[in-house]
Amino acid sequence: MLLNPQYIADHNQLRSDSHRSKLSYWANEVEKAEFVIQKLIDFQIAIPSWALGTGGTRFGRFSGGGEPRSLEEKIDDVGLLHALNRSSGAISLHIPWDIPKDVAAIRQQAGSHGLAFDAVNSNTFQDQSDQPLSYKFGSLQHVDKAVRQQAIDHNIEVIRHGEALGSQALTVWLSDGSCFPGQLNFRKAFERTLESLHEIYAALPPDSDTARWKMFVEYKAFEPNFYSMTVGDWGSSFLYASKLGPKAYTLVDLGHHLPNANIEQIVAILLQEGKLGGFHFNDSKYGDDDLTAGSIKPYQLFLIFNELVDGMDAHGMNHATDLGWMIDASHNVKDPLEDLLQSVEAIQIAYAQALLVDRVALEEAREANDVVQAQELLQDVFRSDVRPLVAEARRRAGGALDPLALFRQLNVRDSLIRERGAKTVATGL
Amino acid sequence: MLLNPQYIADHNQLRSDSHRSKLSYWANEVEKAEFVIQKLIDFQIAIPSWALGTGGTRFGRFSGGGEPRSLEEKIDDVGLLHALNRSSGAISLHIPWDIPKDVAAIRQQAGSHGLAFDAVNSNTFQDQSDQPLSYKFGSLQHVDKAVRQQAIDHNIEVIRHGEALGSQALTVWLSDGSCFPGQLNFRKAFERTLESLHEIYAALPPDSDTARWKMFVEYKAFEPNFYSMTVGDWGSSFLYASKLGPKAYTLVDLGHHLPNANIEQIVAILLQEGKLGGFHFNDSKYGDDDLTAGSIKPYQLFLIFNELVDGMDAHGMNHATDLGWMIDASHNVKDPLEDLLQSVEAIQIAYAQALLVDRVALEEAREANDVVQAQELLQDVFRSDVRPLVAEARRRAGGALDPLALFRQLNVRDSLIRERGAKTVATGL
Amino acid sequence: MLLNPQYIADHNQLRSDSHRSKLSYWANEVEKAEFVIQKLIDFQIAIPSWALGTGGTRFGRFSGGGEPRSLEEKIDDVGLLHALNRSSGAISLHIPWDIPKDVAAIRQQAGSHGLAFDAVNSNTFQDQSDQPLSYKFGSLQHVDKAVRQQAIDHNIEVIRHGEALGSQALTVWLSDGSCFPGQLNFRKAFERTLESLHEIYAALPPDSDTARWKMFVEYKAFEPNFYSMTVGDWGSSFLYASKLGPKAYTLVDLGHHLPNANIEQIVAILLQEGKLGGFHFNDSKYGDDDLTAGSIKPYQLFLIFNELVDGMDAHGMNHATDLGWMIDASHNVKDPLEDLLQSVEAIQIAYAQALLVDRVALEEAREANDVVQAQELLQDVFRSDVRPLVAEARRRAGGALDPLALFRQLNVRDSLIRERGAKTVATGL
Amino acid sequence: MLLNPQYIADHNQLRSDSHRSKLSYWANEVEKAEFVIQKLIDFQIAIPSWALGTGGTRFGRFSGGGEPRSLEEKIDDVGLLHALNRSSGAISLHIPWDIPKDVAAIRQQAGSHGLAFDAVNSNTFQDQSDQPLSYKFGSLQHVDKAVRQQAIDHNIEVIRHGEALGSQALTVWLSDGSCFPGQLNFRKAFERTLESLHEIYAALPPDSDTARWKMFVEYKAFEPNFYSMTVGDWGSSFLYASKLGPKAYTLVDLGHHLPNANIEQIVAILLQEGKLGGFHFNDSKYGDDDLTAGSIKPYQLFLIFNELVDGMDAHGMNHATDLGWMIDASHNVKDPLEDLLQSVEAIQIAYAQALLVDRVALEEAREANDVVQAQELLQDVFRSDVRPLVAEARRRAGGALDPLALFRQLNVRDSLIRERGAKTVATGL
Repeated sequence: MLLNPQYIADHNQLRSDSHRSKLSYWANEVEKAEFVIQKLIDFQIAIPSWALGTGGTRFGRFSGGGEPRSLEEKIDDVGLLHALNRSSGAISLHIPWDIPKDVAAIRQQAGSHGLAFDAVNSNTFQDQSDQPLSYKFGSLQHVDKAVRQQAIDHNIEVIRHGEALGSQALTVWLSDGSCFPGQLNFRKAFERTLESLHEIYAALPPDSDTARWKMFVEYKAFEPNFYSMTVGDWGSSFLYASKLGPKAYTLVDLGHHLPNANIEQIVAILLQEGKLGGFHFNDSKYGDDDLTAGSIKPYQLFLIFNELVDGMDAHGMNHATDLGWMIDASHNVKDPLEDLLQSVEAIQIAYAQALLVDRVALEEAREANDVVQAQELLQDVFRSDVRPLVAEARRRAGGALDPLALFRQLNVRDSLIRERGAKTVATGL
Repeated sequence: MLLNPQYIADHNQLRSDSHRSKLSYWANEVEKAEFVIQKLIDFQIAIPSWALGTGGTRFGRFSGGGEPRSLEEKIDDVGLLHALNRSSGAISLHIPWDIPKDVAAIRQQAGSHGLAFDAVNSNTFQDQSDQPLSYKFGSLQHVDKAVRQQAIDHNIEVIRHGEALGSQALTVWLSDGSCFPGQLNFRKAFERTLESLHEIYAALPPDSDTARWKMFVEYKAFEPNFYSMTVGDWGSSFLYASKLGPKAYTLVDLGHHLPNANIEQIVAILLQEGKLGGFHFNDSKYGDDDLTAGSIKPYQLFLIFNELVDGMDAHGMNHATDLGWMIDASHNVKDPLEDLLQSVEAIQIAYAQALLVDRVALEEAREANDVVQAQELLQDVFRSDVRPLVAEARRRAGGALDPLALFRQLNVRDSLIRERGAKTVATGL
Repeated sequence: MLLNPQYIADHNQLRSDSHRSKLSYWANEVEKAEFVIQKLIDFQIAIPSWALGTGGTRFGRFSGGGEPRSLEEKIDDVGLLHALNRSSGAISLHIPWDIPKDVAAIRQQAGSHGLAFDAVNSNTFQDQSDQPLSYKFGSLQHVDKAVRQQAIDHNIEVIRHGEALGSQALTVWLSDGSCFPGQLNFRKAFERTLESLHEIYAALPPDSDTARWKMFVEYKAFEPNFYSMTVGDWGSSFLYASKLGPKAYTLVDLGHHLPNANIEQIVAILLQEGKLGGFHFNDSKYGDDDLTAGSIKPYQLFLIFNELVDGMDAHGMNHATDLGWMIDASHNVKDPLEDLLQSVEAIQIAYAQALLVDRVALEEAREANDVVQAQELLQDVFRSDVRPLVAEARRRAGGALDPLALFRQLNVRDSLIRERGAKTVATGL
Repeated sequence: MLLNPQYIADHNQLRSDSHRSKLSYWANEVEKAEFVIQKLIDFQIAIPSWALGTGGTRFGRFSGGGEPRSLEEKIDDVGLLHALNRSSGAISLHIPWDIPKDVAAIRQQAGSHGLAFDAVNSNTFQDQSDQPLSYKFGSLQHVDKAVRQQAIDHNIEVIRHGEALGSQALTVWLSDGSCFPGQLNFRKAFERTLESLHEIYAALPPDSDTARWKMFVEYKAFEPNFYSMTVGDWGSSFLYASKLGPKAYTLVDLGHHLPNANIEQIVAILLQEGKLGGFHFNDSKYGDDDLTAGSIKPYQLFLIFNELVDGMDAHGMNHATDLGWMIDASHNVKDPLEDLLQSVEAIQIAYAQALLVDRVALEEAREANDVVQAQELLQDVFRSDVRPLVAEARRRAGGALDPLALFRQLNVRDSLIRERGAKTVATGL
């Protein structure tokens, strides 16, 4: 489904006066409004192909309708999101769910939507039907070299698919670990995993004029293994990435921590060590709940962006390009596309607020141990309503002032159901 | 597959000397060894029909082989466990997964294994293929009375199945809740759920000479809903059960709590209020991990039994019959039958140790605020090796001294795979 | 120290234009701005006497200067806060730290500041130097009736002090519990505690034209006892309060829960059951961290107020008077008065936002299972900047547009240090 | 108070028959009984000087009687423990609480008890009365170089005291961190802390024939700072230790983790990286509860020792000397000396059980992905009663078969109260 640009124009026209009034107020209220708007225009968040359909839990899955039945339809869905918000200009594929049959055609299709291919993701947490060896007891950590080799080969295959598509990063998330005390020799599991990662790392394409590949090593505290995870925390991921080499980085998924973890501090340390590679945004209350970004702890999301902006600036990094920004969510009770629009908006709000922090004053407060003032400076921007700035960035980039409202007004989901059917299940899920 | 009793006799014969030597040592070491052995013989733990196959997580499921393909095969599997340990003399069915086609035949089959039918379980956390209305947004809490009615009717149907089989309890576990702030009116969800439960309660069979039905209201802190659960903690469950009436009780599942919860204290309070109905045993480190009982926190399991024995004795309750004892686990990396043998053994050990606590001395220590001595009294029995007593109870009841060893020695799983196939998936999973 | 009203007038005058501009924008943006302002004017949050000095941890305490050395100075400090924000019109005393020597004088002093006396608090978690029996092993739960009687008598004495001052509620927070498995007979501890509470309850003054006394039973999950707390969760507190009678209520302290608890749902249930009595506001990341309200999880604070407003309205309760609103915080690294100004502001913001929720639309979204829209409705108000409304409410009530700025501008702390000394330690701490 | 050796002889004599009978049974049951006994004899656990008196919480402290009033009395108390159990042959001092006035005399006194001086501990989490600058906002992380210098100098002074006493390690536990978002520049705090640690590291004595000094960098997730800790997890500590150099190591305190952390896996990784330096034993349910070792999660303690034994053996490390073994507990409701006897016993039991693990069979099970068998192997030793082996090790080393019983029988506490008074408060607390 392609969005007729006229719809956006009409939508924006109708809201023009109200938007201008808000914008003019806020452009006056906050300093650097223009700066923020420009930064927002540049800031793109990749949509994972698996988040375009309904997710589920081990207890069940309640499909919605009109889910994409093919890679092409997934790209169309992301294209639609991007047309609406002009901030979802990339898609993150998952192999083997999203193996393109015709690479050139897929690239052209994506290009026509203005979409790039973000990090490609391997899958060694499930057994595919045609797979000779099982990952029941792990993949890159497995005691059997043949299983490890199968997993290594799969990862390398994923890199090759990524190369063909123009991606520049491989995300390795391992479900490897153990469910019971005694099951695993932690030491050997670490060593085997490291050895396997080395082989994958060695298969990364060399740097070229057009591409500088990275490997993201994602960590997770628990699930689907319930006693230990072999890449279980940032410390472990950092160890792997350090031993692997300069192209290896840690990837932070907000839902992959123990209760009460201070994720923003982890972000600051990883940035300082030059080892933060990318982000999976979502939100959670209990575990890896994979809820809409900003729906549970929006202040935490802001604090994370506060560290990101501060740390990236300190290292002269480009906000838009030097980290991988991705959503990783699951949609059990919402329309996936609506959920993704909400997530992107929440991320943009947090980013905009972080950009507004008066860093000079903040450092002064810190140097003076003025804790009250430091808190005030952060909360002042968090309590500010930056939505008009975000909307303006969208408008200037060609998107809708209120993407969710337009999505609903256009009855997009109904069209998709008519087109694809009410009982579809997105490929891969 | 039926176990030839001669195998058990041979197995026990071979271990007889070693067992007698251990038993004689421990019968001397601990007081009341004979009392404990008798109690253990009477103590039966129900096996849930869904735990006979491989479980899984939302990330995948790695089937084992030889899983039961029908209710009949599930009963056979529990029969096999019971033949081995003589402590698994009941099966807990799940409707609609386990609807018997021929009730009389099923009862006879179960009877031939010495199995009773424990609590029957309803399922409103999934949509069945032939189901008119969806539980995507809840069942007994649903805003639409028609959905609630469907769920009520289902629960009543489960009661009727239970009656036919000779069960005497309905376990209601609700996945109802919400995934996002705002989604649910907590107040109305509570009221609607209560109203629905009232209708189900009203359909419980009247007390008779042969049956006194109970309704168990199970609570869970999170999952599959990730913001709120409508029966989310013992306090909520207690409220529902109190409002429903004397046949309604709280059911405690060890994995259904927030981090660090003191479950043994909850047990003590519920027993004191006369509202503890039953137990789902398993173990966990992070959430509802559904691991083998006693595999992560065996001391906690003992402390829970310590409260159970103390509280049941204080209320003149019969250990064997006045609470529902069930396992509720999921097996991702183990043979389900082996896992269940391990769980039953761990539960028996904890129960035996709790029986050995010197309660007179413990109360004396407490009255004297002698914290050191109170701890010593509990740890003394926990550090004692009661396995010979548990083995002796099994032996006297006709079971194997070492059920797991015999299970392996007999290559039971291989037989099941030959009989049922290597790629079976237990019905319902 | 008394605040010269002219300072406030000058301060407000200087900010008048800017404030009017913001107010006029927001009065236009949000519906019911006037309604919210009126509600805010009526809404008063009690300041606890113990929060006027520096708190500390078991590892140490870093005193600030100018802390109040007497009850009179504590009242002066709250008076100062109230003069600044007109929303701190009550003080909550702690006995024995705050026993008035001359009740009439104290009442007159408080009255001159416009302060009422909120709930009085007993203390059985410490031993006072002149105390015959120790609370080392608990107070109302103690195995020794003499210790219990001492604690009962103390609570009754606290009620008498409260009566004399015009308070109408007793808050009972018990540190009673146990540090080790085995230490406590949970059942007996519960019964003894209940019996003791009954005796205190019986001593509550009868209802009169001027006073309707309540007893608040506060719960806490852990600390200072580290294995069990005898009033450990809302379920326990609810049980006690239900058994005690209609004057007994549960008090919720935000920091007194296990990790990840859904406090807003607890609030909704307690309100529905007519058993929510009052609130202790603070914020926390790990345990009972007693940080500034809204400093860690401001969205949670809003969600709690969302339930409070919804539930109180549903029961026809008066927001300002039918629940006890108190701060309970500890100040380790901030000026206590500044911290309290921040807390009150955060609470007012959350309350104002909750008042702005479009409840009709929210119920419609809920009835339609429109989860996306329900979230949007809540986040829309949360993302709105209600600070101008809060400031306007303060202004109209005679307070300062920016209390914290004025506090700093007037160098209040320096004055207090000059007056009271740099090394003071607030009485009781 | 010195223990008359005859008391031990008499005590052991009385229990001789019973002990021999148990020992002979267990020596038969477990393989390598003799090996375990020898290892236990060599294994010594340091007692921290601050654990000899009653601890407390921020809510209060309930002193016991007879607490040591001086360093000399602390040494006597540890000497007494060591005389009883022959496993507490070291004391860990805390500066400035335990600065010796006469080093030679102190060394002689300790020597007469057979005590060594374990790691010395610095204190920058409190302000001492004579201290020019405050640690309110941190010490080694402080924004003011003068404060950092003061803290550095203090640590170096602690090293010097340690040198004089014959200690060989400095433990640096930092309470540095922040209580509120915004308060700290995480990056700069890390850098300043690292720089400070470098200066301390540089002051470590050079390796000599008699001493090879280590610096232990202890981490803690939270408390007394409640938003961030600058050395907050093993990953951070590992980073500091790696950057500092080969003499710097991570120290693990069991209570310093987020909920549900897998500490045994952390231990395995640190050992593998050659960066595990030492241990602080205690137990906890909620946070840094500082309870008796093994009193809450004894299986976890065993699993940790299982990794310790496995990892140390893999690296050819000497169990007795190559890691620092210390208790770090607080005693709120128990006699401190009794508590310490319980802790040492629990640690010895866990160590003995870990020594008994059949590592060849365990590796075979792991290589075969036999999860059930791996669990059985661990639980088999955990369920074994190794107390007779521990008692025998004590007996051979000259200690009491049942130290706690003898401590009580001798009325040691009464003697201490008579000698030191009932209202003493141990120095430093």
